Amino acid sequence: MRLPGTMRVNHLGHLEIGGCDTVELARQFGTPLYVLDEALIRRQCRKYREAFVRHGLRGEVIYAGKALLNKAVCRIIAQEGLSLDVVSGGELYTAIAAGFPPERIYFHGNNKSEEELRQGLDCGVHRFVVDSLYELHLLNNLAAEAGKVAGVYLRITPGVEAHTHTYIRTGQRDSKFGFDLVGSVALEATKQALALPHINLVGFHCHIGSQIFDVESFKVATEVMLDFAASVWRETGFALRELDLGGGMGIRHVASDRPLEPEQFVAALADAVRTGVRRHGLPEPKILIEPGRSIVGEAGTTLYTVGAIKDVPGIRTYVAVDGGMYENPRVALYQAEYTAVVANRVHAPADRVVSVAGKCCESGDMLIWDLRVPELQPGDVLAMLSTGAYTYSMAGNYNRMPRPAMVLVREGQADLIVRRETYADLVRYDVLPERLAAPEHLADQRAIE
Amino acid sequence: MRLPGTMRVNHLGHLEIGGCDTVELARQFGTPLYVLDEALIRRQCRKYREAFVRHGLRGEVIYAGKALLNKAVCRIIAQEGLSLDVVSGGELYTAIAAGFPPERIYFHGNNKSEEELRQGLDCGVHRFVVDSLYELHLLNNLAAEAGKVAGVYLRITPGVEAHTHTYIRTGQRDSKFGFDLVGSVALEATKQALALPHINLVGFHCHIGSQIFDVESFKVATEVMLDFAASVWRETGFALRELDLGGGMGIRHVASDRPLEPEQFVAALADAVRTGVRRHGLPEPKILIEPGRSIVGEAGTTLYTVGAIKDVPGIRTYVAVDGGMYENPRVALYQAEYTAVVANRVHAPADRVVSVAGKCCESGDMLIWDLRVPELQPGDVLAMLSTGAYTYSMAGNYNRMPRPAMVLVREGQADLIVRRETYADLVRYDVLPERLAAPEHLADQRAIE
Repeated sequence: MRLPGTMRVNHLGHLEIGGCDTVELARQFGTPLYVLDEALIRRQCRKYREAFVRHGLRGEVIYAGKALLNKAVCRIIAQEGLSLDVVSGGELYTAIAAGFPPERIYFHGNNKSEEELRQGLDCGVHRFVVDSLYELHLLNNLAAEAGKVAGVYLRITPGVEAHTHTYIRTGQRDSKFGFDLVGSVALEATKQALALPHINLVGFHCHIGSQIFDVESFKVATEVMLDFAASVWRETGFALRELDLGGGMGIRHVASDRPLEPEQFVAALADAVRTGVRRHGLPEPKILIEPGRSIVGEAGTTLYTVGAIKDVPGIRTYVAVDGGMYENPRVALYQAEYTAVVANRVHAPADRVVSVAGKCCESGDMLIWDLRVPELQPGDVLAMLSTGAYTYSMAGNYNRMPRPAMVLVREGQADLIVRRETYADLVRYDVLPERLAAPEHLADQRAIE
Repeated sequence: MRLPGTMRVNHLGHLEIGGCDTVELARQFGTPLYVLDEALIRRQCRKYREAFVRHGLRGEVIYAGKALLNKAVCRIIAQEGLSLDVVSGGELYTAIAAGFPPERIYFHGNNKSEEELRQGLDCGVHRFVVDSLYELHLLNNLAAEAGKVAGVYLRITPGVEAHTHTYIRTGQRDSKFGFDLVGSVALEATKQALALPHINLVGFHCHIGSQIFDVESFKVATEVMLDFAASVWRETGFALRELDLGGGMGIRHVASDRPLEPEQFVAALADAVRTGVRRHGLPEPKILIEPGRSIVGEAGTTLYTVGAIKDVPGIRTYVAVDGGMYENPRVALYQAEYTAVVANRVHAPADRVVSVAGKCCESGDMLIWDLRVPELQPGDVLAMLSTGAYTYSMAGNYNRMPRPAMVLVREGQADLIVRRETYADLVRYDVLPERLAAPEHLADQRAIE
């Protein structure tokens, strides 16, 4: 297994990330623990930006905050010159609280509330990615009230659905997102947007899927979007200024994954954009892309402590760890695959096959099936790789488990960036109404005899 | 659609629960809002207890807290004389914080930590449901340290796997839970438990699945467990005193579901227990069951406000609401089916078919496919039925959405029992390390020109 980012094995045979011994991190901060490799995040940001420069693409790299968002991540993204895509009032609040410049924020979402749109207008987000006619008119009205003009992309459903290694050209019209190209729905929405006084239509947006490993689907989507832009130009005279091609670039979760390098991806996009604009005689728009997972995914590692080990004779050895679906729902949700190494003896011969179970009271709470490891003991530290995206962001408190802490590591320094929840945090929101407060009602009626 | 519990339609045509107008609840507390029908929870508790009495079963009804746990629910469960099953330190903490009597608490979990076992010993939980040899010996050692003897059930894998309408007799040995009956694993564990000085083995536990609609699988599991108890008796002289047959009784989520009444379920169990003990000449043990979903499931309703409505011509109408997978992950996780009514005009003719989408930025965030409704408008209040179990308990903050509030309704009174999270709550755990705090690093390098 190739170890991503700054991972290496130190002289003790321990896994090190960002110059920090993970066994020491587990001891110091407890487990489960999310460890984030700052240098790797910054490297991915720079790779995208540099690829834009190399291929002469004007535009912006927008980090998709839904992959992982907290104040520290906002700061790193801001420092690296990326913009930010938020999908809710809560993400927007987080970004602003971290001092992220609002003029670099893009506001997505299929059902933004009136309150969220007001919040976006108030703090001056750069673009609203408008998803429906309802939202378009609501935003126009709210912008009018606020005496503002909202910068808008329309989200278009391009009829291209990417799967990991392939795509379907006519699929995915059946989506809750965006304006359909079929039946002039998107063209009609464009005309309405152009006619609204408090809407400044600047471009279009599309998004074709997640964890994608081939460029073909992106090239086809680019072609479809530029065909649409050309027809809009002919029909309305509106010349597309900005084209947001979304995200979905895959990462390596397991050894068989073959992700694209940012360079390959941007090169293919640049080529597709130029081919398209040349064919239609369009001016070349600014190009925007929205990597999320490919910025933070491989930079995240989850450290677990091994607990109960159970051999079901002739069937399987279950190794239970102290995390599970409450802090990484992706395995239960998407049958996502991960790999892991034993952090306290990385080089020990992996001559066993075990399955890693979470500690939630549910059969489905498994983290890894059939992992090759050395013989394990309770107390061993297991490092699950490439958990930076859609793990902490999707975590909850199922079984009333407190969510783990997160540390940012760089050059031997480990800083807490999300503190561990406590039991007291779990009951923070509970309220006991007066009429349930009287202890005399708590008569012991337990046993049925 | 049959409306569960105290639901009725009032003179305004609004849905009422516990004498409270849900449209008024939505206005007063905001949406999404979980509404809990106190009378229905109490009715279900009593049905189980009364069925035990009617069939002369000695034992206890144990509420499975993982379905839904907060301080108010703990109080209701305590008042109704049920015991409580907790599966983590967090659930135990919640119960104790609510004043739940520890001598009525049963501690489950496949990978309890040392800290959790200590916590259980310290507060004096009634039974530990021990899941592995590792836990058995760890518990014995910790109990020795504390100068205590722990009351223990061993969790047995009975080789019966229930599906909604059927079961497999030999399946499910491949489970992270419990001791296998095959290869004498369970018998060996029993012998070890009997030999440990700080373990007081009192019985066995099994659990065969979730959302089960037939009694056959429970009867077969009872038979298997009593066969095992008989062989243990012969081999070791240990006479089973308590037999915990777990939970899994299904509820009505959609009209086609045909759940068992507690009465039918308990009658079948009583019959199976008596047949088994008679066959083996065993003394009749105390019987314990662990209903969770069937206590709180139908008592819960989620209120949503309708937002964007989108017609994909010839394909589908998407109706987006202000909740989604962050507050009810069951649809994405288990393809769970729900139904809903329009709370502000329940009796309007349902002449449309729509699909209800959540607001998370993910195609998979759908709540109901193909729901019959009247024509909907933004602002309508949609009431999704039977969301009391595994909804709030599995909720998280995906997309940085604040989790909804929960109100308990009874006889026209609505009390907040879980307060709504705020945006400030979302960043409560974020920490900005010193080295990311310097604003001069936030140079605007946005545009790539």
